[in-house]
Amino acid sequence: MYFASDNAGPAHPAVLEALGRANEGYVSGYGADPLTAQVVETIRQVFEAPDAAVYLVGTGTAANALALSVLGQPWQTVFCAEAAHVDEDECGAPEFFTGGAKLTLVDAPRGKIRSEALAAALEKAGKRGVHGVQPGPLTLTQATESGTVYTLAELAELTAMARARGLPVHLDGARFANALEHLGCTPAEMTWKAGIHAVSFGGTKNGLLGVEAVIFFDPAHAWEFELRRKRGAHLFSKHRYLAAQMQAYLEDDLWRDLARRANASARDLADRLHQVPGVEICFPVQTNTVFARWPRAWHRHLLNAGAHYYLWDGTLDGGPEDAPLMARLVCDWSLPPEAVATFVSQFPA
Amino acid sequence: MYFASDNAGPAHPAVLEALGRANEGYVSGYGADPLTAQVVETIRQVFEAPDAAVYLVGTGTAANALALSVLGQPWQTVFCAEAAHVDEDECGAPEFFTGGAKLTLVDAPRGKIRSEALAAALEKAGKRGVHGVQPGPLTLTQATESGTVYTLAELAELTAMARARGLPVHLDGARFANALEHLGCTPAEMTWKAGIHAVSFGGTKNGLLGVEAVIFFDPAHAWEFELRRKRGAHLFSKHRYLAAQMQAYLEDDLWRDLARRANASARDLADRLHQVPGVEICFPVQTNTVFARWPRAWHRHLLNAGAHYYLWDGTLDGGPEDAPLMARLVCDWSLPPEAVATFVSQFPA
Amino acid sequence: MYFASDNAGPAHPAVLEALGRANEGYVSGYGADPLTAQVVETIRQVFEAPDAAVYLVGTGTAANALALSVLGQPWQTVFCAEAAHVDEDECGAPEFFTGGAKLTLVDAPRGKIRSEALAAALEKAGKRGVHGVQPGPLTLTQATESGTVYTLAELAELTAMARARGLPVHLDGARFANALEHLGCTPAEMTWKAGIHAVSFGGTKNGLLGVEAVIFFDPAHAWEFELRRKRGAHLFSKHRYLAAQMQAYLEDDLWRDLARRANASARDLADRLHQVPGVEICFPVQTNTVFARWPRAWHRHLLNAGAHYYLWDGTLDGGPEDAPLMARLVCDWSLPPEAVATFVSQFPA
Amino acid sequence: MYFASDNAGPAHPAVLEALGRANEGYVSGYGADPLTAQVVETIRQVFEAPDAAVYLVGTGTAANALALSVLGQPWQTVFCAEAAHVDEDECGAPEFFTGGAKLTLVDAPRGKIRSEALAAALEKAGKRGVHGVQPGPLTLTQATESGTVYTLAELAELTAMARARGLPVHLDGARFANALEHLGCTPAEMTWKAGIHAVSFGGTKNGLLGVEAVIFFDPAHAWEFELRRKRGAHLFSKHRYLAAQMQAYLEDDLWRDLARRANASARDLADRLHQVPGVEICFPVQTNTVFARWPRAWHRHLLNAGAHYYLWDGTLDGGPEDAPLMARLVCDWSLPPEAVATFVSQFPA
Repeated sequence: MYFASDNAGPAHPAVLEALGRANEGYVSGYGADPLTAQVVETIRQVFEAPDAAVYLVGTGTAANALALSVLGQPWQTVFCAEAAHVDEDECGAPEFFTGGAKLTLVDAPRGKIRSEALAAALEKAGKRGVHGVQPGPLTLTQATESGTVYTLAELAELTAMARARGLPVHLDGARFANALEHLGCTPAEMTWKAGIHAVSFGGTKNGLLGVEAVIFFDPAHAWEFELRRKRGAHLFSKHRYLAAQMQAYLEDDLWRDLARRANASARDLADRLHQVPGVEICFPVQTNTVFARWPRAWHRHLLNAGAHYYLWDGTLDGGPEDAPLMARLVCDWSLPPEAVATFVSQFPA
Repeated sequence: MYFASDNAGPAHPAVLEALGRANEGYVSGYGADPLTAQVVETIRQVFEAPDAAVYLVGTGTAANALALSVLGQPWQTVFCAEAAHVDEDECGAPEFFTGGAKLTLVDAPRGKIRSEALAAALEKAGKRGVHGVQPGPLTLTQATESGTVYTLAELAELTAMARARGLPVHLDGARFANALEHLGCTPAEMTWKAGIHAVSFGGTKNGLLGVEAVIFFDPAHAWEFELRRKRGAHLFSKHRYLAAQMQAYLEDDLWRDLARRANASARDLADRLHQVPGVEICFPVQTNTVFARWPRAWHRHLLNAGAHYYLWDGTLDGGPEDAPLMARLVCDWSLPPEAVATFVSQFPA
Repeated sequence: MYFASDNAGPAHPAVLEALGRANEGYVSGYGADPLTAQVVETIRQVFEAPDAAVYLVGTGTAANALALSVLGQPWQTVFCAEAAHVDEDECGAPEFFTGGAKLTLVDAPRGKIRSEALAAALEKAGKRGVHGVQPGPLTLTQATESGTVYTLAELAELTAMARARGLPVHLDGARFANALEHLGCTPAEMTWKAGIHAVSFGGTKNGLLGVEAVIFFDPAHAWEFELRRKRGAHLFSKHRYLAAQMQAYLEDDLWRDLARRANASARDLADRLHQVPGVEICFPVQTNTVFARWPRAWHRHLLNAGAHYYLWDGTLDGGPEDAPLMARLVCDWSLPPEAVATFVSQFPA
Repeated sequence: MYFASDNAGPAHPAVLEALGRANEGYVSGYGADPLTAQVVETIRQVFEAPDAAVYLVGTGTAANALALSVLGQPWQTVFCAEAAHVDEDECGAPEFFTGGAKLTLVDAPRGKIRSEALAAALEKAGKRGVHGVQPGPLTLTQATESGTVYTLAELAELTAMARARGLPVHLDGARFANALEHLGCTPAEMTWKAGIHAVSFGGTKNGLLGVEAVIFFDPAHAWEFELRRKRGAHLFSKHRYLAAQMQAYLEDDLWRDLARRANASARDLADRLHQVPGVEICFPVQTNTVFARWPRAWHRHLLNAGAHYYLWDGTLDGGPEDAPLMARLVCDWSLPPEAVATFVSQFPA
């Protein structure tokens, strides 16, 4: 009954086996090893992007902040969704890596930036000449923090608005695979074909120990990225261990299988919760996260019974027992099939 | 015949086994897991420092740069040895993480800061009042970039000079274990008992996949470090995999065994090279690195024969064949015992 | 008919005379001159703050950004009003000087932060632990960007909310004198007695060529400020010319006279505009700025007739001729008495 | 007898008169005034550079640090002379404005970078690939901190070395006029014709209250500079007062007259000191600064008698009375002709 986060579960066994296989003999450090060369090539193939610059880092925050620092300038503002990870959950890493850029929060009901709100934010950003910060990159999160997914048309519309002003677009793909499974499209369709310039391609939340890739479809900034990564202390000396994880992830579609499993668990969870009178599903369940609401007293009961999840808009002790509170329930790839049923069976309803 | 770096060899099998054991079930992320609590306690015991603040990061550069950012201020200068890793090999990470502090390079023959040179640098640093940067942390590297080791008395003398001016002292211990084995002392003796405030305690070069600990003996800056680590994108979500590595490293003195092996290989290598007429050992061989000099033509022969090592003060094509060039030869824990003999047997002499 | 900005008019003649008097003989640079000592003492007296640390800089943005960099930390967020100068008109200077802090925009109708909105922002800021930026300084603007003035009770309420969480409070006093004249209180009452820790005390918009003072009521951070000012390139070598301006400003209550004049002009302007059918005064006119709305066609007429002011919520060519647009009309100390009447007489109404 | 600094004397009366003339009526702020347009054009003519981007700031440190931030990158190192102002006297402003670039100190006897030393520094800088900071701008100081002047041939040699590696060259011209008078060449010859990309063109040390110009001969980075200047809080709202000073400076060759006077005073001072047995002139006296050495006891006598100057390599109380100490004696434009003779007449010799 562990729904707290998709970083709480184990790595997939195939990933550890790959680490074991990689742990033989001597290879050059800092990414100059054959496994790294292989995984770079694999990612280029997966994204149908033979010229892409591809890099590995250890955390999603590093992927996002380094990518944005290359795409933007210190005197610009980054457009992101309200409640985006880059704004709320990275302790100012984008500001740190960019040298003090701003973040402009754009209205994003259910996690998805409204195009009208982006238009207004873009319009406002250029108004004050040298006195104001300048418009900078747009960053979109796919799947969003609310577990929802932009359609390809929605992505294309938003990226076109940025591109019309000469602004680059970054995709925070911490849950890239989950979104891709939902859309049933190709990685290229969800990225460069939809107008994305650079991607944080997540692995950690979907079965790795801790590896994310940064992909620039235009390699012009490759060397700058390498210098910023090193300077940011994110260039691993024993780089083969990052490469081995990512290679295992991509082989035999493991990454898509794991995302499919996680999404299916969330679907099952939502369906079962939907049957419980008094439970409200808050957002469309499109990936591996369910946001749902039920009375405080039931939360108390469930959490005492050993369930793990976060309350998203209140606390156990913050009000009346019958007041509804929203829970975030995240299903990771490893969730045992019976966990969902067991969890829902504990509802007092 | 792989002497290029101690980041080129494999991780110790016990470390991978520990990863496998850690890969079970659900635990909280970001360091709030039992394994992390355990390894923090273990490090406190190893260092006889029950109040120490202890953190794990993925790279040595992160450990150094984050530690210095906490100990210093943007308007200060960090005193370090000429050729220190923080100056030459981190692409400006200390400058980046501190917000633009300077590094003052102090004369350091054979890698060890001369106390007279440090005295002069400290003396000069305070002279220009508000116009100049202010004196900041001292950072010492143990073992040094030249493979040498400060004696405890030398450490105490240098740290006393800094402390007399109210300046904190950091120890870059990327090869901490190798130095400790050479001195035959305790971790406490080589750190806080010798006047050190904070340590980058290396694991990556000595058998891990990629984990370093940062230890502050005074926990006053613990929360600041946590925020800086997160903001620097160095807080791993699946933190247990860092903890598992470090715990395996410290159990049953594995870390000291591995360092002893590596040091012994270097000792053996130096002894054998010493027998070769025309080879000069450049620095005292105290840890796992040998600096030695021989004619360019021999380097050409050896490197063509499959040896891997770095030329330290020239290139194969930069001058006459009989000109002596210095090689850096690093022995890692995994070096097969016969590799040294095989390598030396290839000398044309 | 120049209402574009209070930085468009001349400096007061007494200020230029003071420059002339200061331009004699040799004095030490960088603030170690007698005039600087004198003006520091004068400001301490004016603010009834004998221990205050007082510094001069050349721009209001420097005053704000340097003050905030001393009061806050890179991993914090600064709470400010929506549309505050620090957010909209300083091209990210606060972000730059703080090393990448965030700004949290708080709802502020008519320029004044709503206490409920501040409470909510403070409440939210601490919620995400190490993952989110931490609560930092509160900065209030007095007079506000809308020309309104916080009452002493309002100031006290807002500063108490910050202080209850251990957060320092900065006052952006670019139009300090104008607000003071409106309230009719003492500088101490409007600052430290109301809970303010540090002030940007403006002179440039009220008759100087370009000098602002930064005042810390607690001198603990004095040395840090001096280093940050130098490092920010804001320590003037020929410092006496800043001191002379500020001293002339404070002598014989010149600063209050000038603010009184400017406020009176705005009052007169508002009264006359109020008589014009079809003109709406948007905000209470409490200082030297009037925000008023009338049809686009009239703006076209007035601007063509030689009036200077900014349109605040639209452009001449952005819509129907009868659509009302808001103008910002700023009266500086030097505005000729007849200018207001002349301007209003040009209205086509 | 005031030889402490060329920032200790008064501004030239013509400069104050220009301020008075500028202090009429209303003009747009932030540099959009006619006087600023005029001075930009004047500087372009003076430098025979019709396309140059020209900006005014209030301090020499701002000019240097902003120029370097535009020419370089955070991950680069700036090559400068040992004892350069940018390294010793700006409290890390270049590091702050560049976002943490390094400064590489190049051997510079008598203030002038040795070309062999620059060659070695350039050679070394590129060696470590992604691990080391990258080569960045070269900055030369003309006249140097030692009062000496690079010949045009020397400038051309050094700039050619940087340009051969694609590196831009900045000239710190805090005492530009003094050097120009010594060389008797044109501003163009001493800058872009000698390979310089950007200049900090000083006025403050030569008769202004506080204005320096930054000149980029290639305007490609103009907009970036404007944003950095604003963000650095160095864009003055009442910009006409900076423009008026600089315009007065350039009219009727005032700037060259003042430099000629200052240089002549220093020449006279050196000639007279040369007559005093026991006095040693340390460096060639080419501009307005004399470095000379005489016994500590004489310094005590002179300083007690009311002379003002800095001891450069020791203190009054740091050793035996007969030990020679070096003085720095700076002559500003306003030095009364008799001051030199009076000063030298006080020598006890």
